[in-house]
Amino acid sequence: MADSAERPPVRRIDFQTEPARYRHWKLAFDGDTAHLMMDVDENAGLFPGYQLKLNSYDLGVDIELADAIQRLRFEHPEVKVVVLRSGKDRVFCAGANIRMLAGSSHAHKVNFCKFTNETRNAMEDASAASGQKYICAIRGTAAGGGYELALATDHILLADDGSSTVALPELPLLAVLPGTGGLTRVTDKRKVRRDLADAFCTVEEGVKGARAVKWRLVDQAVPNSKFDQAVKDAAGKLAAGSDRPAAKGIALTPLERTFADSAVAYSTLKVGIDREARRATIAIQGPAAPPPASAEAMVGQGARFWPLRLARELDDAILHLRLNEPDIGVLIFKSQGDGALVLAYDAFLAANKGHWLAREILHYWKRVLKRVDLTSRSLVGLIEPGSCFAGTLAEIAFACDRSFMLSGSFQGDNRPPATLTLSALNFGAYPMSNDLSRLATRFLGEPGSVDKAKAETGKPLSAEDCESLGLVTSVLDHIDWDDEVRIFLEERASFSADGLTGMEANLRFGGPETMETKIFGRLTAWQNWIFQRPNAAGAEGALKRYGSGVKANFNPERV
Amino acid sequence: MADSAERPPVRRIDFQTEPARYRHWKLAFDGDTAHLMMDVDENAGLFPGYQLKLNSYDLGVDIELADAIQRLRFEHPEVKVVVLRSGKDRVFCAGANIRMLAGSSHAHKVNFCKFTNETRNAMEDASAASGQKYICAIRGTAAGGGYELALATDHILLADDGSSTVALPELPLLAVLPGTGGLTRVTDKRKVRRDLADAFCTVEEGVKGARAVKWRLVDQAVPNSKFDQAVKDAAGKLAAGSDRPAAKGIALTPLERTFADSAVAYSTLKVGIDREARRATIAIQGPAAPPPASAEAMVGQGARFWPLRLARELDDAILHLRLNEPDIGVLIFKSQGDGALVLAYDAFLAANKGHWLAREILHYWKRVLKRVDLTSRSLVGLIEPGSCFAGTLAEIAFACDRSFMLSGSFQGDNRPPATLTLSALNFGAYPMSNDLSRLATRFLGEPGSVDKAKAETGKPLSAEDCESLGLVTSVLDHIDWDDEVRIFLEERASFSADGLTGMEANLRFGGPETMETKIFGRLTAWQNWIFQRPNAAGAEGALKRYGSGVKANFNPERV
Repeated sequence: MADSAERPPVRRIDFQTEPARYRHWKLAFDGDTAHLMMDVDENAGLFPGYQLKLNSYDLGVDIELADAIQRLRFEHPEVKVVVLRSGKDRVFCAGANIRMLAGSSHAHKVNFCKFTNETRNAMEDASAASGQKYICAIRGTAAGGGYELALATDHILLADDGSSTVALPELPLLAVLPGTGGLTRVTDKRKVRRDLADAFCTVEEGVKGARAVKWRLVDQAVPNSKFDQAVKDAAGKLAAGSDRPAAKGIALTPLERTFADSAVAYSTLKVGIDREARRATIAIQGPAAPPPASAEAMVGQGARFWPLRLARELDDAILHLRLNEPDIGVLIFKSQGDGALVLAYDAFLAANKGHWLAREILHYWKRVLKRVDLTSRSLVGLIEPGSCFAGTLAEIAFACDRSFMLSGSFQGDNRPPATLTLSALNFGAYPMSNDLSRLATRFLGEPGSVDKAKAETGKPLSAEDCESLGLVTSVLDHIDWDDEVRIFLEERASFSADGLTGMEANLRFGGPETMETKIFGRLTAWQNWIFQRPNAAGAEGALKRYGSGVKANFNPERV
Repeated sequence: MADSAERPPVRRIDFQTEPARYRHWKLAFDGDTAHLMMDVDENAGLFPGYQLKLNSYDLGVDIELADAIQRLRFEHPEVKVVVLRSGKDRVFCAGANIRMLAGSSHAHKVNFCKFTNETRNAMEDASAASGQKYICAIRGTAAGGGYELALATDHILLADDGSSTVALPELPLLAVLPGTGGLTRVTDKRKVRRDLADAFCTVEEGVKGARAVKWRLVDQAVPNSKFDQAVKDAAGKLAAGSDRPAAKGIALTPLERTFADSAVAYSTLKVGIDREARRATIAIQGPAAPPPASAEAMVGQGARFWPLRLARELDDAILHLRLNEPDIGVLIFKSQGDGALVLAYDAFLAANKGHWLAREILHYWKRVLKRVDLTSRSLVGLIEPGSCFAGTLAEIAFACDRSFMLSGSFQGDNRPPATLTLSALNFGAYPMSNDLSRLATRFLGEPGSVDKAKAETGKPLSAEDCESLGLVTSVLDHIDWDDEVRIFLEERASFSADGLTGMEANLRFGGPETMETKIFGRLTAWQNWIFQRPNAAGAEGALKRYGSGVKANFNPERV
């Protein structure tokens, strides 16, 4: 079965890093331009068994890239343009490492692709949301994931030197798809004519020079002698249109976290893992103090500023669970704290949304919440007395597949009954991948319900209010709570993990589609299918036989 | 491997039938209302090894349904409302037959689902495009595909009798998805709140009565005593809004076709099959005579009217190749005939588009062309001297993944050089599933090219014209033609069938998404993935163990 893990259990994959520890990327600064150089250390793969030749990458390489993109936004607000290049002589990037893919379990392959997709989306988000533009300067070969990296930038320059090419050779070479957004960005971002896209995706050696421009695959093909100047000119042009501030950034200091066997403790949340029941509880702690008095004070708090701290910790927790705890099927979200303080932070962020740091934090929350939406685990919100699902935190409840809210109190518990409160940020600040707010998606069939909810902004809503407004799935009293929640969780754990993954991927994203939903819905689903097919992943499949000198043996049957 | 065919080769699946031969459906007429009754003969399955109990269906049942929907449009223009019911006492329809699914090869399952999806889309097209509305009157259980059938109608009535239910129990029962549009129509057509949709899709026993209405799953829940009257009232209301004419229909007479071992001959096209090279050539013959003088004369020609005849034959040929020739990877489209005559038919249809029959034919061509788009084979257009890719037939070339056009003539061939001509019908009459014309999809990146092409409407365009307008992929002269086309076809046949399927499914549908593209792209891709997963299709999976009394054994790993 393609399912069986094909390598021994490995050490925990850690999503935290920092430039001083990078093995694969170099980050340098020149005024309002940052230079991000990919120079993969072939001996520093995340797992044993392969070398990262030709600037090919594995998850470890991409974790560093994601870190760099994130730090550029928070630590370097002055950067208007990021120029992406290769540190190798004749290759830009050969894409995802094939031996790594061939040796990976299906679950690792799929989660690896999801993370790399999110990272490329983060580049596009930096450009669209914060005016931090990306340029890709390609010398040598940009193949597969290498070209897909370029596709995520705003402007692609290709050296016109007779040998530099862009290529998506996945299909002819490996019998898989350019699944890190490649096919979708070719048709929907670059808008390459479909028959030319077909030709491009079936020619191993790729396309170069003028033809690459004509086919809309790159923006410029420039002779070597003029290449550096052309990159500089393109950077200058993009910088001129950017609204990045001349501010000093904040340091994204290391997260405070402690890993135990079945728990991870962060400063703002705790993850409890019950492997037997196959569920994890993410308990979020509300802020202990009101927001600072001014935007400057927020900058002074830096990474300690509660909304940023929680976003970083929640992001890390989700990624940890995705990659390191694949058998955990249900994520339960709880919260404890003062909803009024959460709302005060929301109000602070909304009032300061013109400030560069508040803007970054709002967009980061948007991305973290999308990460939650895209996590292939059942998501459950438990809204109990003492909880603080207000504003931004209520958004987590809306991201859940189901939410349960207690009416009244638990016996012997003197905390006031649970409430949920909406803030202005619930109505557009955090669009999902489908570009609608979670409430607009929730109420596709009854748009009036969004307005009804909006009218209640700022009021602590009781369980009964929430039920009548349609904001929660089930309202239960203390007599039914334990049994109903337990039965639900047990039942959920009894379902097929794959069936749930497919169902949730469809039910969470009603309504309009965007390039993002196409990548995560359509393209990813086809790639996952192909990753299961013997033609790719079987013993005689193209992934397994790549580089062996023996051709893959294909079943010709069309499905 | 899940790929191996799990039943012996069967007789050819035939998509042609007629009401007199139906085993599973009864069609009756009452003025402007048709009654379509599902009454499946459990002993008349398409394959041995299962019984079609509880009005469950297999491909054979759906072929009859598709035939009925088609005949209602052409043979019964007077019908404004179609009422769908069950002929069984306590069950409406139990969905796709599970033993049939469990015993089917992956390729059959996937193609079965594609056809059933197209059939449900045909119901929605009858309603949206021709005012022939569908009502679903549910007494008893509508489960899985049974409810998905209801979802494709305009109005669902559910008996409020304490036992009639609608349900999507696929996930809890079978570890698969409601993949015949179910999940997508729940979120995007019925617009059920996502957490309620999640609850609905995980509860085996379904939802009944008032709750089904409240959750937007059905439109009315009506007590038994008032049920028939409520159906009549709903039918009357829908009929009042329909623009169906009080005309007499035409008979869809049996197709003229002859099957040989490696060829199928129809009256307007020939299919030649080369199994060794894994390709089929569909050679279309243009019309022999000009269009009739009037709409009445068109009605007089009935099913012999050339555009209708070709549409029916092409539709049948595509379906035959899909289901009966799974190893054929490439479909080559050729044509021979007088392009001016093809254009004359286009002009005739355009001029008479207000006539009910012309309207039906135009919408049928739209559906046939969508069937081509959605066929998971590589589609290649060869535009040679003597061909007649004009107007509607040019649309076939635009549906292809690649097109090759000869510049000049073949040696010793005195036919004039190939041309391609556009008609008004290329600019909106035949939208793809993404709701754009094929030319608008083709030129997503350069919308001006659509206008440029439009300006050339009616002019026979040379190979050079077509190349400069971007209407074909490659222009070749007679010296290169044979080699280039051969190399392309051989290369295509050497690629992974699955990789091509995934690539083509992504590249063909750039641009906006619709419920249709979501069903065929996102939902289908996830279902295909799940159909490969051991949790569903493995020896211990839910599909295989269903009804055995032994619970499925699931791998809990989330992907």
